[in-house]
Formats: sequence, structure tokens, C-alpha cells
Amino acid sequence: MFRTAELQRKLPKEDYHLQVSQLREELLMMQMELRKAPFPVIVVFAGVDGAGKGETVNKLHEWLDSRWLMTRAFGEPSDEERDRPEYWRFWRDLPPKGRIGLFLSSWYSMPILDRVFDRNDLASFDERLERIKTFEQTLADDGALILKFWMHLSKDAQKDRLRKLEKNPLLHWRISKRDWQHWEMYDRFIAAAERTIMKTSTGLAPWKIVEGYDERYRSVAVATAIRDAIRFRLDESKAPALSSNGEKKPTPLDTGGLPTVTILSRLEMEKTLAKDVYDTELKRYQAKLNQLQRTARDKKVSTLLVFEGWDAAGKGGSIRRITAALDARDYQVIQVAAPTDEEAAHNYLWRFWRHLPRAGRVTIYDRSWYGRVLVERIEGFARTREWQRAYAEINDFEAQLVERGIVLLKFWLHITPDEQLRRFQEREQIAYKAWKLTDEDWRNRERWADYELAVNDLVERTSTRQAPWTLVAANDKRHARIEVLRTLCERLESALAGN
Amino acid sequence: MFRTAELQRKLPKEDYHLQVSQLREELLMMQMELRKAPFPVIVVFAGVDGAGKGETVNKLHEWLDSRWLMTRAFGEPSDEERDRPEYWRFWRDLPPKGRIGLFLSSWYSMPILDRVFDRNDLASFDERLERIKTFEQTLADDGALILKFWMHLSKDAQKDRLRKLEKNPLLHWRISKRDWQHWEMYDRFIAAAERTIMKTSTGLAPWKIVEGYDERYRSVAVATAIRDAIRFRLDESKAPALSSNGEKKPTPLDTGGLPTVTILSRLEMEKTLAKDVYDTELKRYQAKLNQLQRTARDKKVSTLLVFEGWDAAGKGGSIRRITAALDARDYQVIQVAAPTDEEAAHNYLWRFWRHLPRAGRVTIYDRSWYGRVLVERIEGFARTREWQRAYAEINDFEAQLVERGIVLLKFWLHITPDEQLRRFQEREQIAYKAWKLTDEDWRNRERWADYELAVNDLVERTSTRQAPWTLVAANDKRHARIEVLRTLCERLESALAGN
Repeated sequence: MFRTAELQRKLPKEDYHLQVSQLREELLMMQMELRKAPFPVIVVFAGVDGAGKGETVNKLHEWLDSRWLMTRAFGEPSDEERDRPEYWRFWRDLPPKGRIGLFLSSWYSMPILDRVFDRNDLASFDERLERIKTFEQTLADDGALILKFWMHLSKDAQKDRLRKLEKNPLLHWRISKRDWQHWEMYDRFIAAAERTIMKTSTGLAPWKIVEGYDERYRSVAVATAIRDAIRFRLDESKAPALSSNGEKKPTPLDTGGLPTVTILSRLEMEKTLAKDVYDTELKRYQAKLNQLQRTARDKKVSTLLVFEGWDAAGKGGSIRRITAALDARDYQVIQVAAPTDEEAAHNYLWRFWRHLPRAGRVTIYDRSWYGRVLVERIEGFARTREWQRAYAEINDFEAQLVERGIVLLKFWLHITPDEQLRRFQEREQIAYKAWKLTDEDWRNRERWADYELAVNDLVERTSTRQAPWTLVAANDKRHARIEVLRTLCERLESALAGN
Repeated sequence: MFRTAELQRKLPKEDYHLQVSQLREELLMMQMELRKAPFPVIVVFAGVDGAGKGETVNKLHEWLDSRWLMTRAFGEPSDEERDRPEYWRFWRDLPPKGRIGLFLSSWYSMPILDRVFDRNDLASFDERLERIKTFEQTLADDGALILKFWMHLSKDAQKDRLRKLEKNPLLHWRISKRDWQHWEMYDRFIAAAERTIMKTSTGLAPWKIVEGYDERYRSVAVATAIRDAIRFRLDESKAPALSSNGEKKPTPLDTGGLPTVTILSRLEMEKTLAKDVYDTELKRYQAKLNQLQRTARDKKVSTLLVFEGWDAAGKGGSIRRITAALDARDYQVIQVAAPTDEEAAHNYLWRFWRHLPRAGRVTIYDRSWYGRVLVERIEGFARTREWQRAYAEINDFEAQLVERGIVLLKFWLHITPDEQLRRFQEREQIAYKAWKLTDEDWRNRERWADYELAVNDLVERTSTRQAPWTLVAANDKRHARIEVLRTLCERLESALAGN
């Protein structure tokens, strides 16, 4: 695979200077245009030690306007990072739209090193490469331009280069014992590299192998590839829109002519709970929850609760019955409203990654990432292919949470249209509740059937064994609240038992 | 001081229920209005263990709409937090405008505990209280409403309460050996508390002492105080604007009729550097810088560079000559443009705190917090009292950086109006430079004299021994770049020598 990158290609000094002045001008022009473009650029560097990854990034900082560049490198995770899923730190450092992020070490570093040093067998190595593919796919699907450069040196060339660096008084610090250890492992490293490149070179995120032997050659090769890829994407987006690709607002959702019996219609909506039973149960479950969370905190088990449901279904009330049982130091309620402009400049999942709690805490999302396949689908804010692929993206996101040991619960609070109407009218009457009711709430009522179908799809596609949906009949608030508390206690109890 | 909070006041159950339903309605109405208000609310809880701080916060979550509440508690700092000045974690968790932040432990916790356990003498305790005052003053000056509750119990009442909690199977986990140890220290604790309250109860951020003996009493007392304070502030901002308070756009700045000889006019602007000398010096200083930064990284010494100066003074070029000498993993260039909406919802210093690097890195601010006393002052974006107090706020901010061991350098790149004109015209000619030139740049030229005065004030007030300004004659780019590199190397060298 690397044969073509061991040719000791060089770029003569004169050619270099000729090319570079033109190249720099084009890079700057391209970057200026990019600033207003609706996508970020993610450039990943990996490869053999001494092949010039750091030097190339420095060159790019010199040639580009470094104000719109971000460089990131990931060393040993900090304790805040260790407290969260592995990808948390990558998500939080992604560039926003219009900017270029250069990753000197990245999501590739640890999997490859763990394989080289035999800390991972082949099967788990492959699994980690799969995770990488899914991650890059999610970003690319959302428009991110991903470029990956593998900087290569032959075994002999690497040796030469390490020796040269060692002799240079300004650069010898770059060479550590570790580098020589790595050199000893060269063959293992190349084997892992080949597998990585084979498995993760996708159409949307291809690897480009660059020979690292000559500084001038590799700088120009990388910068040219970046210029061309961004230029191509910019021009593409300026091209006239494709003729209708069948995307339209799905109003109403197409049911294929079948009667719409959804999973929600199976709920026993007449369930109620008497006041006195409720009072006893509430105290009992709150006491239990309090004890469970104490244990969870000690064991560093985090809990993440998602609340979705119709307007006025009682999400807030249920959440308050939970938080009342918890130590105020232990929980956060995240209200999901319109994204801030920083959030809007990233993939829709970015803002949820951002708020992931440290170990041992409870985070409650009042509405969540499921907005993508509910309101965004129904109102046409997300394009068909966007919300359709969201199910897989969400499953992958949740799988990472569960793998990290986070207990994940998802509640849909269901009420009937009549009950909703009754609650809306009640809200209109009560001064301090009236503000909760907006025109949008009334509009959403008209889309009831669409939402019901969307909920059905959502349960069908995202209720996994590890992260199941709990559908709660919520016409009776007391019944719903106890149901939520009971489910939470049971899940926590069984999670802690196995811990 | 605490005598009035040892009266064992109670609120009978019937009174409580009567008051609470009214109170909750008012709290919700108030909160709804607050959401659109241009200020955040910061509520600090401190006091005797067992006096109900956590329970009160839970009560507030029940009574208020918890979607617009944030609760924070600070335990042992994480390693990311330890890498930065003490206040970094407080700044990053401040509530934005329109929201209420409840702080269960806060900037008060460590100073008080360190005093109680004799890890701090009285003088350094007082210093830390001074820091708190400055911090709160900065926030309050910017409009934040700060409420501080000291939850009190007499020594006997605390003992009773700890015993009771110990006996309650649901709550006994709240009581640890540490709590009893604290109880033994009660008198020392109260002494530290008295001093704290005396020294930090200011007009803008007063302490309110609340008796924690009875749960109903203390909940209603705290919630009522919050309601009243926010309500008062909301009504105040609705009142008709005060008659002219003498604030006007300072156009042009008032020089008091004196000729405007500023510090900038003292710079020897004719200094130049020949190309060959420049080439040698550049290589020499870059090599030196490279070695110094390697040492700095090992010693975990961070460097923070601020670049300010006229449009086209060559900030970008100077920055690139620095970054070219550094390992790309070690530095960040922060471009300071218009704030994002998240940033605009906080104090202007928040976004600078936010980007503080971990230990051992270099952060370069291309424009900075000095915008407050330059463009914001001159264009009237900041009110007179806002930019006037900014000097002290900035000095305090920088003092915290320097205390944490960060090497702070501030450069003003100075060019003459003629040279600027020449550069503007040159930019217009060169395609890939033309985008750098905006209408605003031409407009700023007209305010040259104002800026010069503002720069004079800035140097006068913020050039401290620990964080001096370096004024660089930059008509000759080569001279300026070497000057910057040389200064940086010298400062780093002397900082590392003392390390």
C-alpha cells in the first residue's frame, strides 16, 4: 500500500518557490470564501513519526490566515475527559462551519497504538475502526469536508530522519526514547496502518498517502490537496441546485394508505391512581431513588434521562418529582430550546455531547436529540435524508453512552388529544400557567396524526435493548409520575446490581 | 452577628401552605419576566452544615421552572481546573442573562475552609476576600443581580440537626465524619464566617443571614427574598430612564484643551532593519523561542500574548513569525471578532476566561479584552462608566493570570497614519490582500486622534510591572517582528530562570 510513498520524491527549491507564491494566494482566496460557507473542514494527520506532521501544520499556519484555523492534538485524556465517553473530547473540539480544524492526533491515535502494542486484539481493533467510520459518516453526512493525510516514511527513511533530528540542536528534543521504540515496532505499525486505511477510507472521508521524505514536497502536496478539495466543494455548492430530488415537506406524512394504528394507540390510557395511593407511592419511590442515586454517585454511575411527549403532557411535573428526591449537587436539567448560534454552527448532536455530565451525576434532558426526528421532520426543518439517517446516528450516540456505563432512560409521555385540549383550556384560565401556552402549541395540535406516526417510527427504530423507550400513559398525572419514578428506580437498581 | 438567627423561628404548617401557593405563583410570573431581562441572577448559598442549603435549592427547583435554573457546586478541582487560575471554573459556570444560577458551594467555600483549618493566615484570608469582592463587583457592575444567603444554626441546633439526620435512614448518608469534625470547629468556623460576611457584604452583593432551624421557615424566607430582589430589579428597569446622566458618545475625546502628546508620539518611528540582519536575527530568535517553549512546556508555564494595534500594523505577520517557531500542538491563536450570542449573554470578560489554555501552552490573542477600552469606548458601544471601570477589571483579570504563573505579554503595534494609508492602498492593489480591507478600516482612520488618546490611557492604566505593555514601532515590519520576538524571548527566559 505504501510502495508509492517510498520514492524519495523531492521538490527542487526553485520549483517550490514558484509554486508556493501562487498556492498561498489561492489558499487565502479559498479560505476567505470558506468563511461564509455552510460547512466545516476537518483535516486529520496521521502517519509515521518523523514524517513531518507537525511541520506541515506549522506550514499551513504560515500559508493560511491562522485566525480561521484551529489546531488540536489529543494526549492522555484529562480526568474530565475520562469521565465521559471516548468521543466527547473529539466532539467538543470540532470546528464550526466556515473554519478549518487541523487534527495532529485524533480519533485514530489510540486505536492504532493500542493495536501496535497489543493492548487490543484484532476484533476490538476492527470495532474501533467501525466506530470511527460511523463518526466520520455522521459529520460528512452533515456536510463536513473531511480530509485525511497519512504521512509516510519507509523504515530506512524514518531511521535517517530520526538520526538527523537527533543531531539538530534545535530539533533533537523532538526525538525521545519512545520514538526509537516506535521505530522498532515499524512493521507492526505499518500493518495496523494498512488495516486502518483500508477500513476507513470511504468516499466521504478518503485517506491520502503523502510521502514525508522531503519537506518541500510534502508541504506542497498537502496544501494543494486541501486547496483542491475545498475549492471543489465551494464550486459544487455554487452550482445550480439539482432538479427536484423528491424532497418535499411531508405534509401529512405518507402512511401508504394504511390505517394508522401506532404503538401509542396500544397504551391503556384510562389508568389512574388514587390520591392516597399516589402520596404513599411517591414518598416510597423518592426515598428509594435518593438511596439509589447515593450509591450511583459513589460508584460513579451516571444517569441520563430523556423526556419527550406532547405539549402539556406533564414532562415538567414528572421531572420535578425526580429532582425533589435528589441532592441538588447531583443533577442538571437541560432545557432544549432553539440552538444558540454556536450550536447552530455545528452538527445537531454537538450540543448534546457538549452537556454530557461527569461521572456519577444525573442529567435530565427536557426534550432532546429526538427533536431531529420529531419536530424537525414534521416541520420540514430537516431534509428527508437528514432525519432518515438520524435514527442510526442517534443509536450510535446512545450506544456510546451506554458503553461508558451511563444508565439511559427515555420517556414518551402520552396524552390523548381531548386531554390535551382540556389542559390547554385550563392553562388559559390560570394566570401563572398562561405563559406556558403559545400559538405554536395550538398549531402543533393540528399535526397530531403526523406526530403520532413520527413517534411510532422513533420507537420502532431507536428502542434498543440497552436504551429502550418507556411509553407512559399520562392522562392521569399521578399515574404517569409514579410510572416514571418506578421505571427509573428499577433501571437504576438493576444497573447498580451488576456493578 | 448571628444572634438574630438563633431564635428557633418556625413557620406553622397552615401559614406555610397559605403563603406558598401565592409565593409560587409570583415566583413563576417573575421568572417568566426575567427570561427576557438583560441581566443574570446569581444566588450564593453558604453557611453551617446541616442548615438546609441543599434542601432549599431543591425546594427552589420545585417552586420555580427548573428549565431556567442552573445549579452548581464545586468540589475538589479537576485537573483541567487546577491548570488554570482559581476563578476559571467559576467564570465558566456563570448563568447567562435571563437565568438564575444557584451556587451551592462557590468562591467562598475554599477560602473559609482554608481559614478554619489554618491553611491560610489572616492576611491571605483577607486577600482572598478582596478577590471575591472584586469578582462580585465586576459582575454586579455589569448588571448581574447577586444574592447571598448565609444559612445559620447555633452550635446546639447544629448538633441536634446532625443527630436527627443520622437517625433518618433516608438522610443519614448526608452526615459524614467530616461533618462532625466541622462541628468540633464550630467556633473557628463562625469566626471565619463573621469576617467573611463583614468584609464581603457590599451594597451590590449583600449577605442575608437566614435561620436554618425550621425547613418551612427557611424555604419561605429564601424564596421570598429572591422574589422581592428580582421583582425590584425588574420594576426598576421598567421605570422611565433617568434624565440625562451626562453620558454621550465621546466624539471626539475630551482632551481638556491640552495638546495631545501621547505616549505613542515618543516612539522612534524611523527605526528599520536591513534584510540580511533581519534574516539572521529571525532565525536566531525563532530557534531560541523554540527551545524556550520546550522548557516552558516541561515546566508547565503558559504564555499568553496579546496583540493590539492599528489596522494594517502587521499583527498577523508578527504572530506568524512566532507560531512558525512553535510546535503546532502547543499554541492557539484566538481571533477576537464580534461575540457569539452565548458570549454576548455574559460579562465581556467571560469569553476570554473561557479560552484560557491548560498549563504549558501558548495562547495568542489577536485583539483582546482591550477592545472594551478601545473600540467600545470610542464607538460608544460601552457606556462611560462601563469602559472606565474596565481598567480595574482588566488589571484584576491579568493579576490572576500572572499569579497562576502565566507569562503575559501585551504588544501595541504602532504605525503612523501615512504608513497606514500606504499599506491600505497597497492592499487595494493586491487581489489576495484586498479582502482584508473594509469600509470600517477607512472609517477608523478618521478617529485616529481618539484612538491615540485611548491608547495613551490604556498604557497609563494597565501597564503594570507584572504585565507591562510593549509599544512597538512598526513602520518597518522587519524591525517590529524582531522586536516582538526579542521581547518574547527575554520575558520567557527570565520567567523560566525564576522557575
